[in-house]
Amino acid sequence: MSRKKELMIPKATAKRLPIYYRYVRTLEEEGVQKFSSADLSAAVHVDSATIRRDFSYFGELGKRGYGYDVHHILCFFSEILNEDRLMNVAVVGIGNLGSAILNFKFQNTKNIRVSCAFDIREDLVGRIIDGVPVYDMKDLKQQIHRQNIEIAVLTIPEEQAQEAADALVDAGVKGILNFTPQHLSVPKGVQVQNIDLTTELQTLIYFVKANEANE
Amino acid sequence: MSRKKELMIPKATAKRLPIYYRYVRTLEEEGVQKFSSADLSAAVHVDSATIRRDFSYFGELGKRGYGYDVHHILCFFSEILNEDRLMNVAVVGIGNLGSAILNFKFQNTKNIRVSCAFDIREDLVGRIIDGVPVYDMKDLKQQIHRQNIEIAVLTIPEEQAQEAADALVDAGVKGILNFTPQHLSVPKGVQVQNIDLTTELQTLIYFVKANEANE
Repeated sequence: MSRKKELMIPKATAKRLPIYYRYVRTLEEEGVQKFSSADLSAAVHVDSATIRRDFSYFGELGKRGYGYDVHHILCFFSEILNEDRLMNVAVVGIGNLGSAILNFKFQNTKNIRVSCAFDIREDLVGRIIDGVPVYDMKDLKQQIHRQNIEIAVLTIPEEQAQEAADALVDAGVKGILNFTPQHLSVPKGVQVQNIDLTTELQTLIYFVKANEANE
Repeated sequence: MSRKKELMIPKATAKRLPIYYRYVRTLEEEGVQKFSSADLSAAVHVDSATIRRDFSYFGELGKRGYGYDVHHILCFFSEILNEDRLMNVAVVGIGNLGSAILNFKFQNTKNIRVSCAFDIREDLVGRIIDGVPVYDMKDLKQQIHRQNIEIAVLTIPEEQAQEAADALVDAGVKGILNFTPQHLSVPKGVQVQNIDLTTELQTLIYFVKANEANE
């Protein structure tokens, strides 16, 4: 396959790609050869118009009236999602949430591997937890650099988040999945994806209440 | 304050409200009396145009050329975010992630309280973990109903997620924060907010790679 053209597609579209990909992979496993946007829509609960718009960012993926070819779409998404290339990921902070992530291991992906973890606790450093070696925080820069890690998951106390982010960026990390409520300042060219559990829950509560008031 | 009008604002706006709220609360604590959208923008890393558009959903919140009144905005957001009313939340599944959430307790919010948890493990049921009583899954419907719980956080294995969601909805739950990769089928009127860690990480990787290719 030719060198892919990388596109800055909307974040909402990028978030749906792994969901589409998982469905299409299921189809291939079942021996299905083509599917329509209506099939995909019903399976993943995204409306057909949104699916067609999402697909349109990637040019002509299907033929009108024929639908999409499973194998072609699978190869295409696999490349787009970098499934062909193993990504080593570091987890920084092995509290409950960090442990959950070590255990979770981003199953059902072929290309994501949690290859190291960091903490300050003496009883954790030097151990291998769920198959992942735990290093001391003071070795973070050296290990990240040596292992050529570009992606880190940050699950440490809020007060230490910026300092850890600075060290990660210094060591060459290009993307941080930030579970702390701290807004991280990073240089241009470094991506931060925030997951704030309080915000997620407050948003859910907002919609529940709005829905009740409108009933 | 008069009965608020509930609005179905865009999800992206709803997600930013708790972030705005936290900043404005800090201002009040510091004795600041007014702020501009530029102040807010610099503090929360959201551009001013987006902030003004978000605020515009709620009518006239400020005066042109004057800015926003801290106390007024705080009262307004507090009501919008239901900070005036305590929300009891149930956590279903006390693995690593569930434990993280019990420990996390949605700090810095006055209105969210994790009031009960559920699991099937005999060594957990009947205990109080991080101040939260753990009940057997078979008592889920009864407890949720009795405690009048409307919001649940779902952190159980994917295969059991739909069954648990059905029981939650049966018992009166109106909103589910879903950490499983399972797409939940729920009746109209029940809100589901999905947090899929694999999708979040794949999206981050996509943007890191897209960014590198465009450099």
